[in-house]
Amino acid sequence: MNPLAELRAAAQEREAAGLRRTLRPRPPDDDLLDLASNDYLGLARDPRVVEAAVAALRTWGAGSTGSRLVTGSTRLHGDLEAALAAFCGAERALVFSSGYMANLAAVGTLARDGLVVSDAGNHASIADACRLSRARVAVTPHGDVAAVEKALAARTEERAVVVTDAVFSVAGDLADVAALAEAAARHDALLVVDEAHALGVVGEGGRGAVWAAKELAGPVSEQSTALFRESHIVRTVTLSKALGSQGGAVLGTPEVIETLVDTGRPFIFDTGLAPACVAAALAAVDILLSQPELPGTARARARELASAARALGLETSEPAGAVVPVVLGAPEAALAAAATCAEHGVRVGCFRPPSVPRGRSCLRLTARANLSSDDLAVIRHALTAVAEVKVRA
Amino acid sequence: MNPLAELRAAAQEREAAGLRRTLRPRPPDDDLLDLASNDYLGLARDPRVVEAAVAALRTWGAGSTGSRLVTGSTRLHGDLEAALAAFCGAERALVFSSGYMANLAAVGTLARDGLVVSDAGNHASIADACRLSRARVAVTPHGDVAAVEKALAARTEERAVVVTDAVFSVAGDLADVAALAEAAARHDALLVVDEAHALGVVGEGGRGAVWAAKELAGPVSEQSTALFRESHIVRTVTLSKALGSQGGAVLGTPEVIETLVDTGRPFIFDTGLAPACVAAALAAVDILLSQPELPGTARARARELASAARALGLETSEPAGAVVPVVLGAPEAALAAAATCAEHGVRVGCFRPPSVPRGRSCLRLTARANLSSDDLAVIRHALTAVAEVKVRA
Repeated sequence: MNPLAELRAAAQEREAAGLRRTLRPRPPDDDLLDLASNDYLGLARDPRVVEAAVAALRTWGAGSTGSRLVTGSTRLHGDLEAALAAFCGAERALVFSSGYMANLAAVGTLARDGLVVSDAGNHASIADACRLSRARVAVTPHGDVAAVEKALAARTEERAVVVTDAVFSVAGDLADVAALAEAAARHDALLVVDEAHALGVVGEGGRGAVWAAKELAGPVSEQSTALFRESHIVRTVTLSKALGSQGGAVLGTPEVIETLVDTGRPFIFDTGLAPACVAAALAAVDILLSQPELPGTARARARELASAARALGLETSEPAGAVVPVVLGAPEAALAAAATCAEHGVRVGCFRPPSVPRGRSCLRLTARANLSSDDLAVIRHALTAVAEVKVRA
Repeated sequence: MNPLAELRAAAQEREAAGLRRTLRPRPPDDDLLDLASNDYLGLARDPRVVEAAVAALRTWGAGSTGSRLVTGSTRLHGDLEAALAAFCGAERALVFSSGYMANLAAVGTLARDGLVVSDAGNHASIADACRLSRARVAVTPHGDVAAVEKALAARTEERAVVVTDAVFSVAGDLADVAALAEAAARHDALLVVDEAHALGVVGEGGRGAVWAAKELAGPVSEQSTALFRESHIVRTVTLSKALGSQGGAVLGTPEVIETLVDTGRPFIFDTGLAPACVAAALAAVDILLSQPELPGTARARARELASAARALGLETSEPAGAVVPVVLGAPEAALAAAATCAEHGVRVGCFRPPSVPRGRSCLRLTARANLSSDDLAVIRHALTAVAEVKVRA
């Protein structure tokens, strides 16, 4: 069969299932209130972030010009790695061109030829990383720590990695990092926690879910019976959400970082992150240090959004971070609800399979620290319209 | 076994094999002549490129703030996609956050559950993309079109994709795109050509290897017996080499691009490329249009580097683009040669396994359009020292 004819036939099937997607390039400014981006702290357009990136562009140029192992490591990369590690309380950090690539490298390299135990709700980049690892993949039910422990106990492989999102990207709930860390430690496994939607939002000053779990676990001493072994935890973060830039990083012990530098294909064979993006993320970390209240404000706004949705009879859940899902069910219902929001001046995310399971198409509302009370009134108005359309349907 | 102890043991094995790697963050300016970056046209620090990125930062902010399908598509992304498609003579283009991700999406999605035929010399991102595709992978000997044809003819799968680098990233040679295109067309397969090291360097005005092959093939009419079916060719490009920025793109027919938008996981689940990087690449395409002589200059400089190496008895090959390998053999020999170059004021790439096959560790010299005759004299001096050390070893 002609390969293009085959692609056309598949596109028609997606059309019939309500699963076509259209790119809608946005202008720099429009009248829609943004409740769709991952710019949780409103830093992407913060002048301090933007001007740091401008300065980096003029000093270093537009690109890093090569692999991190050839010419693509600038001193800025080193500065950002030091700042991220210090901020999150990790020994070392390694910057990637995206969080996706950071996950591919961390999970793909550390789980190699072993067992990887992955939560069913994990992000696509983690699922792809599991596949690249050549490890046996055990997918456990969402949030089921007992199933994780069982998979680890039953393994025949020497090497094992447990991997979880910290805050799940669409459902918005928080993994039980403390329990997973204990399970991993008990079974000599590494735990990889993707802090993409947690960094800058969850934990003291936005230091993420691992930091928060560590505080919960308390100090681990030689005599302690607690099994929270921080050195067994690898974190991946993104620079493109709360930090308002682009890129990702892996945080971990020197052993982990050196393994990635020596053997991590998505690290070795990718061009280093552009200096402007590095500088923007570095400025955003500085802002988090000087304005430690921002993450709490973003979380409070998210809880307000969820309350408003719940009060209107919409299906949502208590947000752990800044992500608030509103479940509609069918893809068409989610598309119609997103259109209703747009008519009422609010841009929301609309998630359909394969981004969510079938039957769970939803709106994804994201709170920002800089939402005003006027903004919240506009949002309530839009959600009211969504609820009315849903009742009529 | 303690997972960190296992990582330490593996690191000791790499140490013994001469395969440890160290990040050496570079300053913005130093005394070393750059013969290691992929900035083939010297555009990364071109003021036209830098200032376009600065303007984009101030207009759009530091990050794209979301997936391309949510808030991560700005009008700039649309402009760059139109410009890349027009420049390369493709119907459509789709921008990614890296060339690595563009390959993961193109090969991973288009080959899904079929057969993918991949050249043994292909870049790591293509090998990873083959694995992600869940297709059966047939790796053919480097440059062996007959083996590609045989693999296609023997297949039981309906769907098949042939994938090749245009200019191989370390060896620097050119794929026979015309012959591969005919083989693919004969067997109803798609051909994916990674133009990472060809865009801006190879073909008329830097339009790449597919453009050059198309010119060679001549017009294909209904009556023509030629089998060069352009519509069956998908190109991936990077924005981080000749274009001096960061990111990647896929070029192809609407069927191909729409398939990636609807189902390409590395497209759907990644944050859109930062606006500054988009603007920088767009400015670089404009420069290629206004200075069509730049790619020919880069190629001429590469041939001069290869001649100089050959005249000194060093093992090299005739470069198709801007990449000139100097093969030393053992990892230690390559490291020593790179150190010799640095002592003589020249920064070169040093490639060891897994970047090259065992026994083929090499220097990788990259020519730039803006190398002066003084620069070339410095390089000859450094290569002379490398040749002398080699003779003594």
